[in-house]
Amino acid sequence: MESQEPNVTKSPLMPLMYSNRVPVKTILEGSDAETAGFIGMTVVVGGWVRSSREVKKEPVPPQSSSPLSSPQMAAGAAPLGTKDVSCVEILQSRIPFFRTIIRVLGGSASSPAVRQKLESLIAKPPPPSTFFLQINDGSSVSSLKVVIDSAIVPVFAGQILPTGTCVLAQGVLEKPPADEKQTMELKVEKILHVGTVEQDKYPLSRKRIPLDSLRDYPHIRPRTTTVASVTRIRSSLDFATHTFFQNHGFLHVQVPIITTTDPEGFSEKFQVTTLLGEPSKKEASVGVSDADGVSLEAIKAAIKEKSSLVEQLERSDSNREALAAALQDLRKTNELAQQVETREKSKPVTAVNPDLVNFNADFFGQQSYLTVSGRLHLESYACALGHVYSFGPRFQAKKTESTKHVAEMWTVEAEMAFSQLEDAMKCAEDYFKFLCRWILDKCSDDMEFISKRIDKTVAHRLEYMASSSYDKISYRESVDILRKVTDKAFETQLQWGVPLTDEHLSYLVDDHYKRPVIIYDYPKAVKPFYVRLNDDGKTVAAFEMVIPQIGTVVTGSQNEERFDILNTRIKEFDLSKDQYEWHLDLRRHGTVKHSGFSLGFDLMVLLTTGLTDVRDVIPFTRSHGKANN
Amino acid sequence: MESQEPNVTKSPLMPLMYSNRVPVKTILEGSDAETAGFIGMTVVVGGWVRSSREVKKEPVPPQSSSPLSSPQMAAGAAPLGTKDVSCVEILQSRIPFFRTIIRVLGGSASSPAVRQKLESLIAKPPPPSTFFLQINDGSSVSSLKVVIDSAIVPVFAGQILPTGTCVLAQGVLEKPPADEKQTMELKVEKILHVGTVEQDKYPLSRKRIPLDSLRDYPHIRPRTTTVASVTRIRSSLDFATHTFFQNHGFLHVQVPIITTTDPEGFSEKFQVTTLLGEPSKKEASVGVSDADGVSLEAIKAAIKEKSSLVEQLERSDSNREALAAALQDLRKTNELAQQVETREKSKPVTAVNPDLVNFNADFFGQQSYLTVSGRLHLESYACALGHVYSFGPRFQAKKTESTKHVAEMWTVEAEMAFSQLEDAMKCAEDYFKFLCRWILDKCSDDMEFISKRIDKTVAHRLEYMASSSYDKISYRESVDILRKVTDKAFETQLQWGVPLTDEHLSYLVDDHYKRPVIIYDYPKAVKPFYVRLNDDGKTVAAFEMVIPQIGTVVTGSQNEERFDILNTRIKEFDLSKDQYEWHLDLRRHGTVKHSGFSLGFDLMVLLTTGLTDVRDVIPFTRSHGKANN
Repeated sequence: MESQEPNVTKSPLMPLMYSNRVPVKTILEGSDAETAGFIGMTVVVGGWVRSSREVKKEPVPPQSSSPLSSPQMAAGAAPLGTKDVSCVEILQSRIPFFRTIIRVLGGSASSPAVRQKLESLIAKPPPPSTFFLQINDGSSVSSLKVVIDSAIVPVFAGQILPTGTCVLAQGVLEKPPADEKQTMELKVEKILHVGTVEQDKYPLSRKRIPLDSLRDYPHIRPRTTTVASVTRIRSSLDFATHTFFQNHGFLHVQVPIITTTDPEGFSEKFQVTTLLGEPSKKEASVGVSDADGVSLEAIKAAIKEKSSLVEQLERSDSNREALAAALQDLRKTNELAQQVETREKSKPVTAVNPDLVNFNADFFGQQSYLTVSGRLHLESYACALGHVYSFGPRFQAKKTESTKHVAEMWTVEAEMAFSQLEDAMKCAEDYFKFLCRWILDKCSDDMEFISKRIDKTVAHRLEYMASSSYDKISYRESVDILRKVTDKAFETQLQWGVPLTDEHLSYLVDDHYKRPVIIYDYPKAVKPFYVRLNDDGKTVAAFEMVIPQIGTVVTGSQNEERFDILNTRIKEFDLSKDQYEWHLDLRRHGTVKHSGFSLGFDLMVLLTTGLTDVRDVIPFTRSHGKANN
Repeated sequence: MESQEPNVTKSPLMPLMYSNRVPVKTILEGSDAETAGFIGMTVVVGGWVRSSREVKKEPVPPQSSSPLSSPQMAAGAAPLGTKDVSCVEILQSRIPFFRTIIRVLGGSASSPAVRQKLESLIAKPPPPSTFFLQINDGSSVSSLKVVIDSAIVPVFAGQILPTGTCVLAQGVLEKPPADEKQTMELKVEKILHVGTVEQDKYPLSRKRIPLDSLRDYPHIRPRTTTVASVTRIRSSLDFATHTFFQNHGFLHVQVPIITTTDPEGFSEKFQVTTLLGEPSKKEASVGVSDADGVSLEAIKAAIKEKSSLVEQLERSDSNREALAAALQDLRKTNELAQQVETREKSKPVTAVNPDLVNFNADFFGQQSYLTVSGRLHLESYACALGHVYSFGPRFQAKKTESTKHVAEMWTVEAEMAFSQLEDAMKCAEDYFKFLCRWILDKCSDDMEFISKRIDKTVAHRLEYMASSSYDKISYRESVDILRKVTDKAFETQLQWGVPLTDEHLSYLVDDHYKRPVIIYDYPKAVKPFYVRLNDDGKTVAAFEMVIPQIGTVVTGSQNEERFDILNTRIKEFDLSKDQYEWHLDLRRHGTVKHSGFSLGFDLMVLLTTGLTDVRDVIPFTRSHGKANN
């Protein structure tokens, strides 16, 4: 096994546990006194190249030292694969790297024959260069400047410079030249690992890729500064959530994801089943020969791959036979694609008639779904243990695209026994403010980056929301305000009983109040069956917390504790009483007033990062037609 | 709205926020000095009756004060519905309660006519009693003794005594008689809320119900001392998990639940779909008349309900006409049940032929599944940000019942870049020990209860596991040990390459080592495709942490970072390469050595609570044929 644990000087630069490298954050974010003490220390640092430049030492005189961002190479470097460079030159320039590889792997991965062949190619070593890399390891917004002298540490420009290259290196911390902003740089003595990049295929080779393009690469995009910051803030909000609730005597209860009940009573749901069988395992990427059981996705991928091979062969302009064969193969695959497409089109939109399906044979013996909300299940724990909360994924099979909604979203839900509408409103407000304050306190570097690059106003808004008091108005009052509006025409004409649309909510918080607003006492028809009926018989004890620029972040309610009224409401909503017997049991036996709320966690991440689309803040987004990994 | 926020004396007895009642824990678990200071203070307390007794003041002389557990009533009390008591007596004895109700609801829920009728029934008040209730609010194992003098606080035995009754009461804290164990009791001055129990239907009316019977009432069982303790320990383990990882520089990443890839490559999976349509909404509980669209579950529930009505009428022995009608109705429903059963049986086991289903029309445009493991997705974040972890539900559609496995289980997964097998083993061991120590430190009351009632040895075992060092042996060594065993015959004959069974693991940790053991370097065929191939070409860098009495709690591995080898492994496992392109990308671009592990959270709860079946520690268990809410 490769030696990855050199004897590093014991120092306040504690290596990260279970990794034995010092996080970049520790090196760069120490106090001035600490930083001064770091100089001269030997450390191991690992991370991915964010940008780089090369300065040739000889025979070409040193270049201007203005930073060149990858993938642009410093002039004079010999990027791999360009026509000006002969194969021998490429191999020669790669030799130091091969040597490193041979040394690092202790020869086990390359046979003596290969080694001999490689060494025989050494004619003259390439002119030495100094490589300047900005390495980021995800621990902070800032990257560490890493300096490699190829005369001392044999490494090749094409291997080390491309953005995304992984480097693990041991070196000495030094003070950079006085004219540089950074407080520290690493002078490399030994490279312990290099993970190269296939530059022509690497999605982040270009700089400043728009967020919506990055969505196609959810597995790579955490390497960008923005998504890295989002991830750190998201993780911090997560811990803040547990901290808030645990500090206030709440117990965390993991409500089930698979359920047979539908708490909203009117949601589009995903069904969970084992009746639809296993997918076909045939693949189309290699040797596709017949259309049977090959998926359209697979064949499209094969066409892409084969087209790129053809292009490559066309460019290289050398091997006409290979090109002809590749073209022929591509043609065949194209024909196959047409067959598959015809086959797919001939299938009915769905071959499944639910009335003919024997759901007794399904895994759970009945139809079951992905949960839309955990509040009903949470209630049963609240009605035994008092304050409880849950934090997990919730699902809705809405086909409409939206910047605020996708199929799978994480939600925080709280439920409290011996508590009423005002208690839930107060708790939601306190929790929300706690999150705002936490991010300001714990993520100052990320907030600074967000101010510079995404939205200048975020920190100010968080500060304001953490410290101001929120207006509380009834639904009726909000309708009265909105009906008096003359300077704006709403798409939906408002009258009592109609749900408030995003447009209405935006007017209230962005134009009228210019701050968060809590709206309560909604008409009973627009809220779920379980919300407590008010004495007027027309409204229910529900509330929403609406935030400027975001919209509704929290929905909550006092839930119906009276058996007879709940029973009537279940009938009014035309729900299957059998499914809610367990829910009615809580009212049959030791019923208690209780209230709670749900907070859209992904919206909270939007709010704290200044981004506007949840697809940019959810690690792997699931939406209509999109689930590719 | 009912006044639930009386002016409670400001004191160190801080009410719980968002509820304005003082948790029982605060009252009972203060220091002696604190407790002394509490005496004479007015507080509001809420909770559910765990046990109770009544002492009649007159005309019957006071009973022995030995505690009688509900549902047994103190002798001389007039339990509702027994034949000895006339209707008038029952109503009379209920009048104080009706009065309370009228007062509490401010008259809105009962018309003047009803009130008049009720008040006219008052002939002579029932003889006053003192009620002694043990109230538990979920904040602690201990319950608070609540004393109600029905002469001062009008309340009726049948309303207040049954186990499970919810009580919110204001009163004065007093020192109990010297011969009692408890440090404090509440002398009630005002009852703010009573949530009654339908005793004949309440599943917890009996005492000491076995855990497996409680599984039928997941929504009620958190009111038992055992499940309440389990919930508190589970919640504490949850927070310990976040604390451990956040303190060690890990970021929490929420991996997707819906996925198109299968990280294990050989798991039984649930499919997620919108192709199977909505369930029928017809219900059978009332007025079932035809078999169309009625589910077998619904009709079974109706039969149960109707049978119970018949029984009740038979017992009451009064209304022959009603009994005849009920019998007739039950007969009809039984016939209907047969029709429905015949209909269900005539359905094919499945009407769905996957080859005919157009999955392009499904929500995600392809077959998608519930995730089995988040480690692959987590990898992509580790290969950008270093240390990451995930904590969420994972799914396997295994039909076999087991005490250690159900369909939906929560799992903690960690992944670390720049880290190898030993790092993952070290991290898993540290995390595991951290959890053991945390529970010993933070849940001492619950541990005491567990020692008394479930398993005396748990605390000792946790202490031992938190402080001892774990043996690390290779798979080969473990096979060598097991093959030498002569005092025990294993069901599975062991030879190199065969997976270790529960029986083998149990022998190693329970009999041979008598402590936790980490086994590493498994044959490549028994571990997933992504585990790193060792230099011998036969074993992979996987490990399992095996715990006495529990079995494997952690599985982990160093994952394959070399593109070519991973590519080959994907082919060897006959997996669709297209689906793993994103996974290969991580090796194509800036690859890095990385390792991680998964911990079965539910097994961890078993281990810390001394229970033996995960179905007793998961709030709402999902297993084959079982998902009823």
